[in-house]
Amino acid sequence: MFKSYFLLFTFILINISLYAQQGDAGAVRSIYNEALSNGEAYQNLDYLCNQIGGRLSGSPQAAAAVEWSRQVMEHYGFDTVFLQEVMVPHWVRGKKEIGRIVNSKKLGTYEVNVCALGNSVGTGPSGVVGKVVEVQNFEELEKLGRSNIQGKIVFFNRPMDPNMIKTFRAYGGAGNQRGAGPSQAAKYGAVGVIVRSLTLAQDDHPHTGSTVYALNVPKIPAVAISTIDANRLSDLLKDDRELEFYFETHSRMLEDKISYNVVGELKGTEFPNEYVVVGGHLDSWDLGDGAHDDGTGCVQSIEVLRIFKSLRIKPKRTIRAIMFMNEENGLRGGIKYAELALKNKEKHIAALESDSGGFTPRGFSIDAGKEVIDQIKKWKDLFKPYGIYEFELGGGGADISPLKNQGVTLIGFRPDSQRYFDYHHTAIDTFDKVNKRELEMGAATMTALIYLIDKYGL
Amino acid sequence: MFKSYFLLFTFILINISLYAQQGDAGAVRSIYNEALSNGEAYQNLDYLCNQIGGRLSGSPQAAAAVEWSRQVMEHYGFDTVFLQEVMVPHWVRGKKEIGRIVNSKKLGTYEVNVCALGNSVGTGPSGVVGKVVEVQNFEELEKLGRSNIQGKIVFFNRPMDPNMIKTFRAYGGAGNQRGAGPSQAAKYGAVGVIVRSLTLAQDDHPHTGSTVYALNVPKIPAVAISTIDANRLSDLLKDDRELEFYFETHSRMLEDKISYNVVGELKGTEFPNEYVVVGGHLDSWDLGDGAHDDGTGCVQSIEVLRIFKSLRIKPKRTIRAIMFMNEENGLRGGIKYAELALKNKEKHIAALESDSGGFTPRGFSIDAGKEVIDQIKKWKDLFKPYGIYEFELGGGGADISPLKNQGVTLIGFRPDSQRYFDYHHTAIDTFDKVNKRELEMGAATMTALIYLIDKYGL
Repeated sequence: MFKSYFLLFTFILINISLYAQQGDAGAVRSIYNEALSNGEAYQNLDYLCNQIGGRLSGSPQAAAAVEWSRQVMEHYGFDTVFLQEVMVPHWVRGKKEIGRIVNSKKLGTYEVNVCALGNSVGTGPSGVVGKVVEVQNFEELEKLGRSNIQGKIVFFNRPMDPNMIKTFRAYGGAGNQRGAGPSQAAKYGAVGVIVRSLTLAQDDHPHTGSTVYALNVPKIPAVAISTIDANRLSDLLKDDRELEFYFETHSRMLEDKISYNVVGELKGTEFPNEYVVVGGHLDSWDLGDGAHDDGTGCVQSIEVLRIFKSLRIKPKRTIRAIMFMNEENGLRGGIKYAELALKNKEKHIAALESDSGGFTPRGFSIDAGKEVIDQIKKWKDLFKPYGIYEFELGGGGADISPLKNQGVTLIGFRPDSQRYFDYHHTAIDTFDKVNKRELEMGAATMTALIYLIDKYGL
Repeated sequence: MFKSYFLLFTFILINISLYAQQGDAGAVRSIYNEALSNGEAYQNLDYLCNQIGGRLSGSPQAAAAVEWSRQVMEHYGFDTVFLQEVMVPHWVRGKKEIGRIVNSKKLGTYEVNVCALGNSVGTGPSGVVGKVVEVQNFEELEKLGRSNIQGKIVFFNRPMDPNMIKTFRAYGGAGNQRGAGPSQAAKYGAVGVIVRSLTLAQDDHPHTGSTVYALNVPKIPAVAISTIDANRLSDLLKDDRELEFYFETHSRMLEDKISYNVVGELKGTEFPNEYVVVGGHLDSWDLGDGAHDDGTGCVQSIEVLRIFKSLRIKPKRTIRAIMFMNEENGLRGGIKYAELALKNKEKHIAALESDSGGFTPRGFSIDAGKEVIDQIKKWKDLFKPYGIYEFELGGGGADISPLKNQGVTLIGFRPDSQRYFDYHHTAIDTFDKVNKRELEMGAATMTALIYLIDKYGL
């Protein structure tokens, strides 16, 4: 008798869970349909890229992007839209840079398209010139030592590894040349730094991106050159020790400026002081229009809330879309957001960031304990019909990382990464590089995950 | 005693199988490395698209593509490279088409960018003009009947369904308008047909593609218009019954021409008369350069054999790369290939086709019995590190389909499909729409599967 009750009970349980699953599958289907049939992320991105454009922290365009995103979210009728004031660095590139191989045995004088690294000091109108020491890494630099480097220009030329399937790993493997290279070279008396662009493409676009000067080391100017130019320079150097490089940059760091994170929210109906947040960063580099980095993350985050509203899904918890300011060269917005969350005693359950481009969604990387990851993995089958298979341990994203020590589950949205570094931090990170359906599929995938986290908690 | 022998035996078996798996994993890794670090598919595609261009069956460019692919494969030193003669249709577009909304209450006369459907008859210099009857499908056409259609132009305007995640399904759901629409309309006395372009993009590019005239029905001229123009025309028609459309096309079908499939092969070391083949189609429409359709499939198929040779993998079975001729408007090459395989008593084990674009690989669709599919699925784990998860029942591809009744396992290479129909059969199906790494990842994925099929059989 007990046994048959038990069986009946089990039977009921299975059916309830099946029903719940079917309900979730239906909800997820509705979310994708809304994104693909009535999506507005693409037209929003069009405005952000083509009417506002590149929006480096402290620039007029960044201010325009703040006002634009506030208006978009107010227009959608989110329950609250507000700004969080934050002081941001104000670095400006100044006049177009000049780069030139001089004294080359083969080429004589040869113009090279260079761009100043973000945050770097400028050379001013007199430029900097010197013989070139090519290295692959900091160990080589140390071996060469001051006697070989003093007064010269260090050329960091370690390529990203093309064999890595996830290109962000290849980026991680080469990134210290740009981030720390200038100060590492300055320690040995270098007068300037050239960095091979961080991309797997062979082309003519230099890629900017921030460098961070170490304390107590002279700040020396630094530029990026394209991969094709890097290969050319490296070839020339093989049998030409007298070759020199000249570059002229006019970048400088001005006083900090007031700027803002922009936050839109839908109030939770059951647990209004529990927060599930989704965001991207509103600032971008100045060379292009910040389309994939990170206009797509911003418009997708807004789209998550728009889809909730459009489908009349009333979240249990408060859902926020956050446009973080100053990810690229300071992370001040992300730090401020976490500070305020703590101060205001907002209990954040999970934070999802989209800052890997607007490409076809492949999955999520999750920075949390095993239990939480296992719970999220239980939803995998709901995503399979949409080609989403990857739920892996990994970082969430720079802007949400300061929330980590508040015990928040951090999640990174992971689209296909093959094309990302073709555009990253270049003049060609523009609207036309974003495919409408890929962008919408991403927004739907993010919405579905936020929906499930809100419904079941973590 | 028996038990412990049994355990020992099991232990050994598990270890052998583990070792074999590790060996396969290593081989697959080498294949991806070769494609990503030393790949030549991209430069081959550059030549095919930019030095030869669009290559419709019977055109001088198609002849150039035959000679080019023979030379490429000979240059790589494949064991044999040969041509298979085949007669192909020779349809020509002639002068640029003219399309025009006339008599519109709102717009007066309005120029529309049209393109003749492949295989369609031309209007000649006098063009065709008529009132426009918009329908979504053949059922509506039948309901309207001859009294409403006679002397008019039928406008097929059923969009592809944006909610379908795999865009080829959406294409399948709308494709009969182009393929059979003209003859269906002609049955009721229509004088011409306009078809909404088969794409999910909202843009200004008309998409060509073949139409097939039914027997014993008048052949009427037919054009495609862009989705934006289709929406505009549909809007105008809502309150403007007097509106007329004029179009002028100069296309015509000439005499069949001699052309060729191009085949390169690596001889099998153990079973030389067992064949594992991989292919794409060499012909393309004339508007663009046939980059994704199907230049990518051709260069990837060649790349499979190049990778085998470069890694010194000696196949057990004979591996062929086949450039099929005339997929787009006749399938004569595919039919001829199957005919010759039968005639020459070549035992084909499996045929893999790449004709879905050169995008990030997602998996394979397999047209075979359950046993074979289960066997292939056993290799799934080998593909996971490369983001390949989908091994599904489904069609292989048009060119290899005539091999089906020889009991051959047919496999379709399935890359991500979100962008495919943005370019398909248009003037913008050009080299710059192909990403090098996505193309190479696809070639590696195909090579890995061919490697496993050759090694283990099916």
